[in-house]
Amino acid sequence: MTHGDKSLVAANEVSGTAVYGADDSKVGTIDRVMIDKTSGKVAYAVMNFGGILGIGGDERPVPWETLTYDTGLGGFRTSITEAQLNDAPAAQEGWDRDRDWETRTYQTYGVTPYWI
Amino acid sequence: MTHGDKSLVAANEVSGTAVYGADDSKVGTIDRVMIDKTSGKVAYAVMNFGGILGIGGDERPVPWETLTYDTGLGGFRTSITEAQLNDAPAAQEGWDRDRDWETRTYQTYGVTPYWI
Repeated sequence: MTHGDKSLVAANEVSGTAVYGADDSKVGTIDRVMIDKTSGKVAYAVMNFGGILGIGGDERPVPWETLTYDTGLGGFRTSITEAQLNDAPAAQEGWDRDRDWETRTYQTYGVTPYWI
Repeated sequence: MTHGDKSLVAANEVSGTAVYGADDSKVGTIDRVMIDKTSGKVAYAVMNFGGILGIGGDERPVPWETLTYDTGLGGFRTSITEAQLNDAPAAQEGWDRDRDWETRTYQTYGVTPYWI
């Protein structure tokens, strides 16, 4: 993803962007951004982590607020750790609203849900 | 774009989705969705229109609120007309915030700006 210092970003360019932890080590990669159709807000980003060379790995939803683009790193910086991801709710296939699951996701990372 | 009756949509799948006007005729195609990094809200979608076979054409930013996914059509429905698009502000290359330009865009379509 480019334009790290800009205020807007094209959603498709977020896909494939690396996510780095507090110690600059790579935690995972953003696969896609999910948008809430009615409100036009990002519901969450889906992050892939734990795979080898981009193969395998698990998907986890992470709140948009946990990601900050760092131009120096050329990727997102997050305070989320791999241990947190392992304990967090897994990504869902269905794209129906599941408020319980979304609530658990946001609680995991201590972020106020996007619908509040 | 699939999952038209769901509450969430993957932003990348919005790209390439057709947009139809009031009379079911195709008005254009969504090229990309721009997200405001800080708020996590869709700032606008960029729509391509007026080209021939997907070549050429002009790009216009349109508020997310003007697009409603219609499962029957397999695309978005909008009340925006080609005449409106011709008179509307053109899309910008830069991804800096330009509040005047965004304001004119939202005023064109009579939609309350996303930052209000």
